[in-house]
Amino acid sequence: MALKNGHLNGQANGKAAAPRRIVLLGATGSVGRSTVDLLERDPEGFSVAAVAGGRDARALADIARRTKAEFAAIRDENAYSELKEALAGTNIQVAAGREAVIEAALREADLLVSAIVGAAGVEPTHAALSVGRDVALANKECLVCAGAPFMRTAKKTKAQLLPVDSEHNAIFQALGGEDPSRIERMIVTASGGPFRTWSKERIDDATVEEALNHPNWAMGPKITVDSAGMMNKGLELIEAHHLFGVPAEKLEVVVHPQSIVHGLVAFSDGSVTAGMAPPDMRVPIAHCLGYPDRLATPASRLDFAKIATLTFEAPDFERFPALKLALDALAHGGGLTNVLNAANEIAVQAFLDRRISFSGIARHVAAACETALREGYAQAPESVEEALGVDHIVRERSRAVLAVDAPSGMLTLQ
Amino acid sequence: MALKNGHLNGQANGKAAAPRRIVLLGATGSVGRSTVDLLERDPEGFSVAAVAGGRDARALADIARRTKAEFAAIRDENAYSELKEALAGTNIQVAAGREAVIEAALREADLLVSAIVGAAGVEPTHAALSVGRDVALANKECLVCAGAPFMRTAKKTKAQLLPVDSEHNAIFQALGGEDPSRIERMIVTASGGPFRTWSKERIDDATVEEALNHPNWAMGPKITVDSAGMMNKGLELIEAHHLFGVPAEKLEVVVHPQSIVHGLVAFSDGSVTAGMAPPDMRVPIAHCLGYPDRLATPASRLDFAKIATLTFEAPDFERFPALKLALDALAHGGGLTNVLNAANEIAVQAFLDRRISFSGIARHVAAACETALREGYAQAPESVEEALGVDHIVRERSRAVLAVDAPSGMLTLQ
Repeated sequence: MALKNGHLNGQANGKAAAPRRIVLLGATGSVGRSTVDLLERDPEGFSVAAVAGGRDARALADIARRTKAEFAAIRDENAYSELKEALAGTNIQVAAGREAVIEAALREADLLVSAIVGAAGVEPTHAALSVGRDVALANKECLVCAGAPFMRTAKKTKAQLLPVDSEHNAIFQALGGEDPSRIERMIVTASGGPFRTWSKERIDDATVEEALNHPNWAMGPKITVDSAGMMNKGLELIEAHHLFGVPAEKLEVVVHPQSIVHGLVAFSDGSVTAGMAPPDMRVPIAHCLGYPDRLATPASRLDFAKIATLTFEAPDFERFPALKLALDALAHGGGLTNVLNAANEIAVQAFLDRRISFSGIARHVAAACETALREGYAQAPESVEEALGVDHIVRERSRAVLAVDAPSGMLTLQ
Repeated sequence: MALKNGHLNGQANGKAAAPRRIVLLGATGSVGRSTVDLLERDPEGFSVAAVAGGRDARALADIARRTKAEFAAIRDENAYSELKEALAGTNIQVAAGREAVIEAALREADLLVSAIVGAAGVEPTHAALSVGRDVALANKECLVCAGAPFMRTAKKTKAQLLPVDSEHNAIFQALGGEDPSRIERMIVTASGGPFRTWSKERIDDATVEEALNHPNWAMGPKITVDSAGMMNKGLELIEAHHLFGVPAEKLEVVVHPQSIVHGLVAFSDGSVTAGMAPPDMRVPIAHCLGYPDRLATPASRLDFAKIATLTFEAPDFERFPALKLALDALAHGGGLTNVLNAANEIAVQAFLDRRISFSGIARHVAAACETALREGYAQAPESVEEALGVDHIVRERSRAVLAVDAPSGMLTLQ
């Protein structure tokens, strides 16, 4: 299939659609780079209002040139002169610092792709939502830490939220525009990770190398460890709860090792629709970039006769206590999922630093949730700022308890 | 799940929706009876303007009473007095004959359920479409014999066509309102039938009993034999072609013995959506009755951990030549699919009457198609009447060639 013009509707009508203006936050990360790949393939379909990155000035400058971005913002102020120099001789505006990233987020555009990793993504994404900007959301913290106030803002400004995550994107597509309040069950699939068939004892003592050996997806270390313990599925259910407005009791996880089906929606008449895709992040990103039209991508196509077998298993809460913790936090409601997420992030860092065992991650998260409930900072946040405040407190406490150093760039910025 | 009110939207808004007025053609057949089951469960959600049946006056009278229908029409004029008598003492109007069924089809309603089996369903369904009535379509001949003129009428009157067939219903749900012109592939699944693993030699000489032994679905003998030879999938691709306006080259069949996934849609970005349901016709019927809302049904729910395994295979045109014939007829275009369908129906009857072998069905169909091409009656029909004329000619010729008696009620009316 030709890639001449992504706007199939425009093609069908015989009219050239105006290029879609995009802001890309987190351009140098994994989702950011896949987005750039798609934008570069369709230079007539898109124009780039702004790109933003964390600290890699050279990579950001390269992306800004390739996408002909109008503005490049880097969060790390120390990287300003390197970025400035790398973009000398171009018309690309340059700025650095937290405010610069927010400025990028607020640039006039048809769609903001929010792909900053970690809590640093919340403020600029929320700023864009606040002015009614449609957002393709890849940042997890927006929903896990601050889901309720975040969704309130989207509702108020009527901004459309499109999920980039493969599971939520699959569910969005499976819903097909139907009101999520009508569904009976919403199912997120889990690959089961590298420990799917391991005994509880073996999982509890898994090494860093074992936890990083994911069978299906190449991802960053934090999410790969989350995936090994299935905490990532718990976080995804929390996201699905906010994104689709579905109560905890209608949310399920099913283990599906082939990672072909990413999400399913079951309706009250017995019908089930499923969203599938090859394991290529360009597919859900392209869905968001093209929505409500469809782009053409060079991603591999699902060949069902070749795939031959899809299997499904119930998740095992005994061997994967982190998943149970997340479901319990979601069922409890309020701000407990925010506590869970922050404590988990530091615990994973402690595990990667070889300070705690694999089973120590879930133990620390459980203890942090108990502390928060006891000390009264697990209430529902009134605002995004309040949610980020609790996130900060929990991280600080977890760092102190686990003797983890100050945040590394890898975990919070890209 | 409670079945108090099917109109979930109405419930959500706290308003009681007005009952939906239904006309049910083919009330005494398999789809008709499943429809009645759903209507009876939701007496506040639906009112029945008319029911129509073929010749079973007693069964039709029973359904008319149970659904509180305003009008009951029976196609067989000889059954009039029996129907009249059976409904004595009620307010239900009674009529008989071809015109009576058309009168039922034209009764004012929100939705006509077209579940008459065979060519007899085409005229009344087309009459309803002509006045802009939305139609839940279970009759195959409307699309297979007269797809082009039938769809032209629907387009002209802006009547909505909802597919009842599990495969087409699954695809309709998987499309989620997206323009079918944007899709890359449309895939209908096939159980593979009782001969899925058999050798070509064994299939060619299969007995009537073997052909009627379908592993997943309990259906009438004609469609069960079609399923054994995979002709039913060919006919379904022809239907999909007309219903969704998708060209032959984008249509595929994949064998899926578990019959959980019924249809899939692949988009240009690499995404695939799938429609699934338990093997219970009440699910797609309920989808049509509720659309665009959702009803609640007592159908069993898909439990993926229990289902455990879904498998897929490429179809084998060598062992299942009927499928290849149907695809070739579809690719050829014009009225050849109409010829194929009519010749197949008589050949299946000849097989059920033990006049020809199983392999003789496809041989007869191929010969009938060749004759039609040679003698020039395989052009695209200008009208539904012209299509039905060709259907009649081919049936007569096939009956003569195969020495099959005049139509039995079972095959053409229910």
